[in-house]
Amino acid sequence: MPNNKGVVYIGPGKVEVQEIAYPTLELRSGPGVPPMNAGRQCPHGVILKVVASNICGSDQHMVRGRTTAPQGLGLGHEITGEIIEKGRDVEFFNVGDLVSVPFNVACGRCRMCKEGNTHVCLNVNSQPGGAYGYVDMGGWPGGQADYVMTPYADWNLLKFPDKDQAMEKILDLAMLADIFPTGYHGAVTAGVGAGSTVYVAGAGPVGLAAAAAAYFLGAAVVIVGDFNQQRLAQARSFGCETVDLNQDATLSAQIEQILGIPEVDAAIDAVGFEAKGQGGSAQPAIVLNSMMEITRAAGKLGIPGLYVTGDPGAEDEDARVGSLKVRMGLGWAKGHGFTTGQCPVMKYHRGLMEAILRDRVQIAKAVNATVLPLDEAPEGYADFDRGEAKKFVLDPHGMLTR
Amino acid sequence: MPNNKGVVYIGPGKVEVQEIAYPTLELRSGPGVPPMNAGRQCPHGVILKVVASNICGSDQHMVRGRTTAPQGLGLGHEITGEIIEKGRDVEFFNVGDLVSVPFNVACGRCRMCKEGNTHVCLNVNSQPGGAYGYVDMGGWPGGQADYVMTPYADWNLLKFPDKDQAMEKILDLAMLADIFPTGYHGAVTAGVGAGSTVYVAGAGPVGLAAAAAAYFLGAAVVIVGDFNQQRLAQARSFGCETVDLNQDATLSAQIEQILGIPEVDAAIDAVGFEAKGQGGSAQPAIVLNSMMEITRAAGKLGIPGLYVTGDPGAEDEDARVGSLKVRMGLGWAKGHGFTTGQCPVMKYHRGLMEAILRDRVQIAKAVNATVLPLDEAPEGYADFDRGEAKKFVLDPHGMLTR
Amino acid sequence: MPNNKGVVYIGPGKVEVQEIAYPTLELRSGPGVPPMNAGRQCPHGVILKVVASNICGSDQHMVRGRTTAPQGLGLGHEITGEIIEKGRDVEFFNVGDLVSVPFNVACGRCRMCKEGNTHVCLNVNSQPGGAYGYVDMGGWPGGQADYVMTPYADWNLLKFPDKDQAMEKILDLAMLADIFPTGYHGAVTAGVGAGSTVYVAGAGPVGLAAAAAAYFLGAAVVIVGDFNQQRLAQARSFGCETVDLNQDATLSAQIEQILGIPEVDAAIDAVGFEAKGQGGSAQPAIVLNSMMEITRAAGKLGIPGLYVTGDPGAEDEDARVGSLKVRMGLGWAKGHGFTTGQCPVMKYHRGLMEAILRDRVQIAKAVNATVLPLDEAPEGYADFDRGEAKKFVLDPHGMLTR
Amino acid sequence: MPNNKGVVYIGPGKVEVQEIAYPTLELRSGPGVPPMNAGRQCPHGVILKVVASNICGSDQHMVRGRTTAPQGLGLGHEITGEIIEKGRDVEFFNVGDLVSVPFNVACGRCRMCKEGNTHVCLNVNSQPGGAYGYVDMGGWPGGQADYVMTPYADWNLLKFPDKDQAMEKILDLAMLADIFPTGYHGAVTAGVGAGSTVYVAGAGPVGLAAAAAAYFLGAAVVIVGDFNQQRLAQARSFGCETVDLNQDATLSAQIEQILGIPEVDAAIDAVGFEAKGQGGSAQPAIVLNSMMEITRAAGKLGIPGLYVTGDPGAEDEDARVGSLKVRMGLGWAKGHGFTTGQCPVMKYHRGLMEAILRDRVQIAKAVNATVLPLDEAPEGYADFDRGEAKKFVLDPHGMLTR
Repeated sequence: MPNNKGVVYIGPGKVEVQEIAYPTLELRSGPGVPPMNAGRQCPHGVILKVVASNICGSDQHMVRGRTTAPQGLGLGHEITGEIIEKGRDVEFFNVGDLVSVPFNVACGRCRMCKEGNTHVCLNVNSQPGGAYGYVDMGGWPGGQADYVMTPYADWNLLKFPDKDQAMEKILDLAMLADIFPTGYHGAVTAGVGAGSTVYVAGAGPVGLAAAAAAYFLGAAVVIVGDFNQQRLAQARSFGCETVDLNQDATLSAQIEQILGIPEVDAAIDAVGFEAKGQGGSAQPAIVLNSMMEITRAAGKLGIPGLYVTGDPGAEDEDARVGSLKVRMGLGWAKGHGFTTGQCPVMKYHRGLMEAILRDRVQIAKAVNATVLPLDEAPEGYADFDRGEAKKFVLDPHGMLTR
Repeated sequence: MPNNKGVVYIGPGKVEVQEIAYPTLELRSGPGVPPMNAGRQCPHGVILKVVASNICGSDQHMVRGRTTAPQGLGLGHEITGEIIEKGRDVEFFNVGDLVSVPFNVACGRCRMCKEGNTHVCLNVNSQPGGAYGYVDMGGWPGGQADYVMTPYADWNLLKFPDKDQAMEKILDLAMLADIFPTGYHGAVTAGVGAGSTVYVAGAGPVGLAAAAAAYFLGAAVVIVGDFNQQRLAQARSFGCETVDLNQDATLSAQIEQILGIPEVDAAIDAVGFEAKGQGGSAQPAIVLNSMMEITRAAGKLGIPGLYVTGDPGAEDEDARVGSLKVRMGLGWAKGHGFTTGQCPVMKYHRGLMEAILRDRVQIAKAVNATVLPLDEAPEGYADFDRGEAKKFVLDPHGMLTR
Repeated sequence: MPNNKGVVYIGPGKVEVQEIAYPTLELRSGPGVPPMNAGRQCPHGVILKVVASNICGSDQHMVRGRTTAPQGLGLGHEITGEIIEKGRDVEFFNVGDLVSVPFNVACGRCRMCKEGNTHVCLNVNSQPGGAYGYVDMGGWPGGQADYVMTPYADWNLLKFPDKDQAMEKILDLAMLADIFPTGYHGAVTAGVGAGSTVYVAGAGPVGLAAAAAAYFLGAAVVIVGDFNQQRLAQARSFGCETVDLNQDATLSAQIEQILGIPEVDAAIDAVGFEAKGQGGSAQPAIVLNSMMEITRAAGKLGIPGLYVTGDPGAEDEDARVGSLKVRMGLGWAKGHGFTTGQCPVMKYHRGLMEAILRDRVQIAKAVNATVLPLDEAPEGYADFDRGEAKKFVLDPHGMLTR
Repeated sequence: MPNNKGVVYIGPGKVEVQEIAYPTLELRSGPGVPPMNAGRQCPHGVILKVVASNICGSDQHMVRGRTTAPQGLGLGHEITGEIIEKGRDVEFFNVGDLVSVPFNVACGRCRMCKEGNTHVCLNVNSQPGGAYGYVDMGGWPGGQADYVMTPYADWNLLKFPDKDQAMEKILDLAMLADIFPTGYHGAVTAGVGAGSTVYVAGAGPVGLAAAAAAYFLGAAVVIVGDFNQQRLAQARSFGCETVDLNQDATLSAQIEQILGIPEVDAAIDAVGFEAKGQGGSAQPAIVLNSMMEITRAAGKLGIPGLYVTGDPGAEDEDARVGSLKVRMGLGWAKGHGFTTGQCPVMKYHRGLMEAILRDRVQIAKAVNATVLPLDEAPEGYADFDRGEAKKFVLDPHGMLTR
């Protein structure tokens, strides 16, 4: 059995790459594993040699101490890998297959899975919804590691049809595990279609993915707003308009300057509960409220940005339990629709894979995918937290083009 | 020219039936008429003899002084009438036609109307969305009157195919102007379908209409919650389960007692911003937050209940500008979707009319439609405000079956 | 191991109840089993004691010799049963569970299943789509038997939450395996909704189920057409209007007499390729063509009635290969949409079950469900073929209320 | 009043540019005008100076004598123009506005228009659906002319927001009247989305527009099939794969060579009833039947190609009344869905306009838009009929970039 190393959450501000247990087809007890999952047998699972494993903005929420993540939690939910062992019940995958793993762990047998809502599977966690290496998501070990186990493989995995072809586009394909479908879901649920004008709040990787997705969906103009100049420049690199939130001009004034009117058809929240106002003050509802302000009547808001039920690091009591001052009256007057929650990756990953393989979309370039050895994960986390306009892709086995 | 009388808003807690101007095909200046509409010519309009005109819960918001409605505003937006004069541009209606008037005033020519979003028409008001006799809705005179003008008649009106047949079901048909489509829209946007379990917050007329609509859409169980015993009894009269919110048991505990599980598939907010907690304290976000609690993951919340941008009568500063403490984290964790805003009546009224005319649904009975002479409107307002489980239908010309 | 008996296809016009092999968790070679399935292991399957097993109109196509069904094929695809044995990979069902079995055999792992298209599963047959006891559908043994095996149980089966409650409504619940979802799918794909006027071609059990489903979906008027008086009377028993196709008046003239206009909003083909004209002549396209004639512009046609690629019993060469003279020009001029194919039962069965359990719909009564002992299946086939207005439910173990 | 010239249908194979009446706000009696429209007043209409007016493939059906078009019919339904006069009831357009005219004439007041089905408006023709200069479409004068009247202007027209900007992209914008939305509608109704593989039958302008639309909708691969080498080369010019139907290899074999599998996700019929087989023989159902063959199970077929109810030029009696030998059994076995009929242009034109104005799509280049003076229309018709890979744009006033 080979050694295994993985990224482990140590405490606020700190992750380490440690020796971790080599995965087996059992979910063993450990930090964050709920009782129902301790010792859970997974004959339907596979062991993957991890080919690529990205650092995600939602990992940062944990690492910044803004969640209840337990110390010792192995991180990583954006996994691409090669099957090196399969359980007895795996029927339609084989050792050697190169696959994308949706970050949602799902059983493929409950009502939610059957209805396509794999983000709120009822059987893999003590509450709806599971994920790898994430707080409150069922305790499934993280995939920022050399090797990882993934359950219900026949249901969850997406096989790349040709390995060589896939390795040529592996940085794009690595975005299928989470960020590209998540951005796409944000755009779809915001109602983006041919000719839409779109505002994306946040120019981090999810925001950039949402912006790229919006253009892929036919948007006429995508406007990205952020405080971070480097990230705004990255957004402009693939045709977005940008709004610098440090400026005195209001968001709607800046949008008016770009579009001639102060409103867009659709808005996407790629920030979530750690939203800040000018000067860096915590204003957890500011993104939602400003999106209502600049979205036209009968428009929709896609909200892939994470809002949590418990935020021990929040500044006020309300925010600590996920309660925000939302301008419902404004949204109601405009007849807005709001879609929240995790992206059900399976709804989108196959189609987006085909688009990537046929060169119809360049997602790795849009998010500035940047390869790092697994050992340098802590530096990646730190750079990302400082606002680097990069999407870090960990490369445990040195298989990625650098 | 005949005399005309109508219900007029005098001030908080007070309405009167007064002599008002007989309508012409012009929107004359008056209380609540924005400059763009003062003197507006309506050759596309008709004059209606009002056959039925209902009192609506949203009228109560104004009469209770919880909006910025100006004194002297003529009320009434749930209008059924007979055409007695038509403008030169009206092509497909005739004098003598008996029609239902959607409460949304819409032009039938702007982008929103073309897309079916008649609730946010861009051409009939200084902001998106118009209505008869309502604050901030364009200043179109109210229809709790003997006679009223309705513009863009070819676009807005729905003709009842046979007058005699229609008069036999006129109390049901009178609900097509607002409440039945509004309740139906709440149910549709909450995702109600075959076999759904549904919670309706509020057993006022809109809540009862939403409950009836949910059953009509195929719901397995509809649970209605309120503090008012008479209204809960009315809900039970057509097969609803009920939750008495005065009880100690929590909402979810009461739902569990009915369904065996503490969650429903779909929830409808038929209360809005004047929501109260136990003991009658103002808790404007309590309905939204409790609906998130008892709606299953991936469920939807339909929010026909009104939330406002300005509430001078609110108890705290936030609520005064329509800002509420919403548990976004809870909704996000469950992946909820939210649909707010007015109902675009035109999307639904024709189909619901056909269902009424063929006896497929009994909406008047569900909401306990109760006829009142126009002169007794003030008593109707008062009774309604006290919580009578009745939907008052004003009868200016004595044409309704009592 | 108990004995097992089942209905077997002997040849045109003839079925017998014979001793058959007791099922195991393996799909053994036999009549109609394609090479890919012979010897297929099913550790994901269960053995069911059959509680109810209906005779279907599509069984009649085989028994009348109008398909290429092989002699010796065990029939029956409308199965309700109790789990008496489960494979090692079955995780979420237990022995003793009472379940409905969708007639579509599906793997729950292929692209089609993941997209909700369980009627064209790619892994259970040599072509898309599998079913129990049906020609060209993968050779899965039929369920008109004492016992039957059903694969991929975690994916396919629907558990009734309470056994006693379920047995009280077992004749209704027995319709969930095929006919109720199939009729419902026909109505849904025909666009039936609130207030629709609907024409259903054919008053056999699927037609009656489609009619009941159309009313359940909110239709204002459902008109059923057939040559068979008894079946038309059955349609009228639950509120349908009827058209007697033996009459001289055209279909559109008869519809005009009912509705005042000669067109409906939606039409459902519950007949399929064995359609006949007046006098009983084979006219395989007459239903499709007449539905285009009487469906309004922009209307939709739901086509659950079966059309086949090979009909050895057809009268002309074209029909023998499933080629029909369709009036495409007529459909095109009206902008019709057409939906064909098997019903993906899983999309609908849970919701319809909830509606049945809460008494919102009476499907057994609508189709006149009639219990027969398994041994009398041949008489049931014969009576059904003669046009009895009954849906026969075989009762192998004498568990059904008679 | 200026002179007016326009393209007139003389008889099979022949069109001429003739002096025609200058338009007024009345639909005067003339060839093809049904009694209900003769003398119809149009105070809601405008007079346009025609800026661009395209020749359409469906014009060719008439000119080839394959319809019942009357001699003397003025042709042209793809109109872009400048308003030079407006009726008294036109409220939201002004003289000087540059507009695109959907080829569907629609009232904006009937049930179909309200539901977005402007292609089957009930009020502008003696049967559902109207168009300019087209047989059986209400007798509205054609727009291949210097000037033309368009009714219900507030409803029908799409204004280009900035005239100068619009003139820079006028060849692209000219495609909004019909061909771009029509191709887009074909792709949408075929279910094209992210990553789809698509087959487009026919490389004429509609086929090329459908192919461009499919890529715009996110298709991974678009394969276009035709007999015409020049047109296939045009398809390749913007990234399509092509199938040369003259080759011995079957369509499915050629598709397999491109995709690795012999099936696509979606298919679009851009040919219609004049379909031909190898060697040029009339085979009106060959496109439909071959599309069913090469479309995967649960796939959809979009059918913008025209099928007619009367084809006097057809070779056999069935085809003469629009009856074709369709392989329904094949489609049914695969569960195909079919959408036929005219495109409701209004559903799409605004969004596509925005995409054009922001350079997100190049439709003029895809269809090889080629400007011709109005006087050279007959040569354009002839060249087009010979199979030139060009979309001819008539330029009555010399305003187009050549």
